Amino acid sequence: MKKIGIICKSGRSEPVEILKEFLPWLRNRGYEVFLDEETARLLNMDGYLRSQIPSLSEVIIVLGGDGTMLGVARLVGNKGVPILGVNLGGLGFITEVNRDEIFDAVEKVLAGRCSIEERIMLTASVHRNGERIADFVVLNDVVINKGALARIIDLETYINNSYVATFKADGLIISTPTGSTAYSLSAGGPILYPTLNSIVLTPICPHTLTNRPIVLPDDFSVEIFLRSESEDVFLTLDGQVGFSLRKNDSIEVRKSDFVTKLLMPCERDYFQVLRTKLKWGER
Amino acid sequence: MKKIGIICKSGRSEPVEILKEFLPWLRNRGYEVFLDEETARLLNMDGYLRSQIPSLSEVIIVLGGDGTMLGVARLVGNKGVPILGVNLGGLGFITEVNRDEIFDAVEKVLAGRCSIEERIMLTASVHRNGERIADFVVLNDVVINKGALARIIDLETYINNSYVATFKADGLIISTPTGSTAYSLSAGGPILYPTLNSIVLTPICPHTLTNRPIVLPDDFSVEIFLRSESEDVFLTLDGQVGFSLRKNDSIEVRKSDFVTKLLMPCERDYFQVLRTKLKWGER
Amino acid sequence: MKKIGIICKSGRSEPVEILKEFLPWLRNRGYEVFLDEETARLLNMDGYLRSQIPSLSEVIIVLGGDGTMLGVARLVGNKGVPILGVNLGGLGFITEVNRDEIFDAVEKVLAGRCSIEERIMLTASVHRNGERIADFVVLNDVVINKGALARIIDLETYINNSYVATFKADGLIISTPTGSTAYSLSAGGPILYPTLNSIVLTPICPHTLTNRPIVLPDDFSVEIFLRSESEDVFLTLDGQVGFSLRKNDSIEVRKSDFVTKLLMPCERDYFQVLRTKLKWGER
Amino acid sequence: MKKIGIICKSGRSEPVEILKEFLPWLRNRGYEVFLDEETARLLNMDGYLRSQIPSLSEVIIVLGGDGTMLGVARLVGNKGVPILGVNLGGLGFITEVNRDEIFDAVEKVLAGRCSIEERIMLTASVHRNGERIADFVVLNDVVINKGALARIIDLETYINNSYVATFKADGLIISTPTGSTAYSLSAGGPILYPTLNSIVLTPICPHTLTNRPIVLPDDFSVEIFLRSESEDVFLTLDGQVGFSLRKNDSIEVRKSDFVTKLLMPCERDYFQVLRTKLKWGER
Repeated sequence: MKKIGIICKSGRSEPVEILKEFLPWLRNRGYEVFLDEETARLLNMDGYLRSQIPSLSEVIIVLGGDGTMLGVARLVGNKGVPILGVNLGGLGFITEVNRDEIFDAVEKVLAGRCSIEERIMLTASVHRNGERIADFVVLNDVVINKGALARIIDLETYINNSYVATFKADGLIISTPTGSTAYSLSAGGPILYPTLNSIVLTPICPHTLTNRPIVLPDDFSVEIFLRSESEDVFLTLDGQVGFSLRKNDSIEVRKSDFVTKLLMPCERDYFQVLRTKLKWGER
Repeated sequence: MKKIGIICKSGRSEPVEILKEFLPWLRNRGYEVFLDEETARLLNMDGYLRSQIPSLSEVIIVLGGDGTMLGVARLVGNKGVPILGVNLGGLGFITEVNRDEIFDAVEKVLAGRCSIEERIMLTASVHRNGERIADFVVLNDVVINKGALARIIDLETYINNSYVATFKADGLIISTPTGSTAYSLSAGGPILYPTLNSIVLTPICPHTLTNRPIVLPDDFSVEIFLRSESEDVFLTLDGQVGFSLRKNDSIEVRKSDFVTKLLMPCERDYFQVLRTKLKWGER
Repeated sequence: MKKIGIICKSGRSEPVEILKEFLPWLRNRGYEVFLDEETARLLNMDGYLRSQIPSLSEVIIVLGGDGTMLGVARLVGNKGVPILGVNLGGLGFITEVNRDEIFDAVEKVLAGRCSIEERIMLTASVHRNGERIADFVVLNDVVINKGALARIIDLETYINNSYVATFKADGLIISTPTGSTAYSLSAGGPILYPTLNSIVLTPICPHTLTNRPIVLPDDFSVEIFLRSESEDVFLTLDGQVGFSLRKNDSIEVRKSDFVTKLLMPCERDYFQVLRTKLKWGER
Repeated sequence: MKKIGIICKSGRSEPVEILKEFLPWLRNRGYEVFLDEETARLLNMDGYLRSQIPSLSEVIIVLGGDGTMLGVARLVGNKGVPILGVNLGGLGFITEVNRDEIFDAVEKVLAGRCSIEERIMLTASVHRNGERIADFVVLNDVVINKGALARIIDLETYINNSYVATFKADGLIISTPTGSTAYSLSAGGPILYPTLNSIVLTPICPHTLTNRPIVLPDDFSVEIFLRSESEDVFLTLDGQVGFSLRKNDSIEVRKSDFVTKLLMPCERDYFQVLRTKLKWGER
């Protein structure tokens, strides 16, 4: 691997500070670097469109948080480029490398002494009046959510074409294992081990109190029909992209054909991350 | 009591059917009736603005569901007129009279053989740049809620001027005992006995999992500052009225000086309603 | 299939009533029947020890509820005999055949027109002072539970030999997908689709509120050390068998080498059962 | 106030270390000290039975944790002696004084510059075959709990003589506001502000998922009949005292006629304690 993409969180100064030291270190070792435009400008260098970087790189280093990683994972899509997440703040669920571990971590990655963890992604297709009108890919979750003013929406839900229930709720989350520690957890969902071949459906504030999270095999399809008249219901993708829904739209969610490849250079195991993030205390 | 206001749920035909029989029955007994405009029109009669009816009536009969009742309770405000809720569908939490019990119930009410239950209400005041810009009164709940596209908002919360926490959540519900079985219950809140002198703060999908519902004396004040930059955060009142919030707005919630007086002509006790509505099963 | 075992719930009269009609029906069709001793006695027939029936039969029909089924599943163990559960009361999660569907269902089963659903089982091994002192197999769940008098126990937990947490709780449930709608659900666990290759760890009333249910691949091993001094901590297996634990005992839980084969003659799908049992309402 | 009782947590060395410095400090100021027997022995002094200390003292200082405080509160019962709790470990919910604040705190208390918070207590009476066979008083909670081997018990529950439900559960907690942050919180109950005139009923792992915590006025009586045949169901009081129950026993729970008086010398408010104990993070 000689070609390294670097994508940084927007509007933050830390990545620039880190790169002043990190870029010469990479070049001295003979690596070619592709930097995102915004960061490049701050360093008076030439940069690339974010969307181009996955095609140019053999590995992508992300300086940011879990949010930046989600965006890069969607950009990479089917290109299969592995991603290394470096967290500028504390520990993240998918950015396990801390700022002070960056040189060590990258050295391991570039020397090939680093495991890759494959994480499933989901595709969501929106159908309206019999036509497919939009497609999305996510690493964390597909969320159908009402706006602030309506109180409850009706979501008629099918799994593998079998009717499940019409959830009366603020919304519904369809989450990957990676996303299970994000929004789904706040809504009462379980933690899914990251490499589990499963997805979880978590209703948001369901009116029927017995509507509990359901864990499904990841080769099942989920189809949801919005049955409420509403001006103000949205599909959100990884909490970052929004799409306005109308009555009788259907959203079909399936496992994507491609995966996100996360580079894991640290010894840290998943349970250590859980303990730290969820403040379970140490032994 | 000789003057009876009648307010019906909009856009439904059942009230008209009921009134065809019910109005003559009332008039034969010498009662003066004040009907809401929309329903009156359907019966080819003279009607009154909903907002006028509380001033004209000694008792108000509501034909609708819990939602219609909430609107009437806010209309009545400080006028102290007792309300009788008749549910067109099944049983409601505050419309305990079913359709087939209406004549019996009204007879008891008009004969004075009926207890009145007083329910606390809340006032919510919005402050912006040091000025009070809006005031509301509710019977169920004051809700601060993000729209569908933002994921989390920061709500810096004080109780009696003591800092409590900055909730990172989808929103926050401040509910009366009456409202505790509505949205708050869906968000994980407890059931509060209706005559309890308490309010409950229930965070909606909190990011910090240990942020649990808090029950407070109803003479405590709650003040919440919206600390997030957002285009899409709303105050909703009883789930029916919305008000757009801006960063650094504060919302102050206190017990109202006036109460809603619910007429309770049926023998049914509160736990019977709970058992039926929450499907606890019979003995 | 010509050899049919029949095992009935103890101390109930309904199975006897059913069998008076059902046994002649089977014999007329040329089937050989092996009846459990207790039921046989009530019918003045020859019976067999429950533990013998799996070896004698090609299929076992259970007349009882989910509890009776669990016991039979453990009896069958590695013998691979498929089981048909007939529920004497309402619908069960694993006894999907109702009393009035019995003839139809058995006809389908014996004609081979019936699908078989394989459900994973768990083994639990107890180690004390370096020795393995007990082994169990379950279809629903392995539970470590404190008695009524102690308030909290310390359960030091490892997954695939990685330290997870020391749960301070009333106990810990390790459940199969089949067991996820039983005790684990009451303790706040998610619903796992029955054929999912997963298990779920659900802490019971955890002191640390962020200790949430964790779903794991079913080829992971879970090891739990009881670290509390206690006279009153038990391992329970499918809620039916108990084993007294001592401080520093470890319990190792893994997927069993054999599965339970459930006969599914009815058209009813899993979500229909969920809707009925959890009162989600119909479409 | 010249007479000071001191009661320490059993089997710990820290209290002895503290007292070596603290006792001379008290005597120099002219206070008479009544020390519990066990601690006195370790200091080669004369001691008193714990049960005698409330009658001898004008104020009691407890060196221990929340658990020791609960025991002392029950000992004090109707004698009205105020209690100061000093926590040997971190912060406690009812032992808000930390070890290093002890001299300051006691100085304020003895100078009368210290507020007293009154906390309600509950009485629980057990009836069997028409006779009252036992009475208890608690500061935190009355718990009916099954043992480890039975799975579910039936608790037929009445509030002010109205039937509520027959809870099928592991047990039921009736908690004061003080106890709401203890066992009830682990079982899913809300936080009750400590001076609230309320109690909360929290079912433990209820089989019916809609059985949610119920907050009641503290002048309501709760009566529970154990309807299960069981060898292994217990009443526990503040998690410290146990009493074996039989089928058809009833437990009546009411507010006690007397309160616990907690001395609050520190500026710390309740929400600060919540933030620290529940790890809500600082502003």
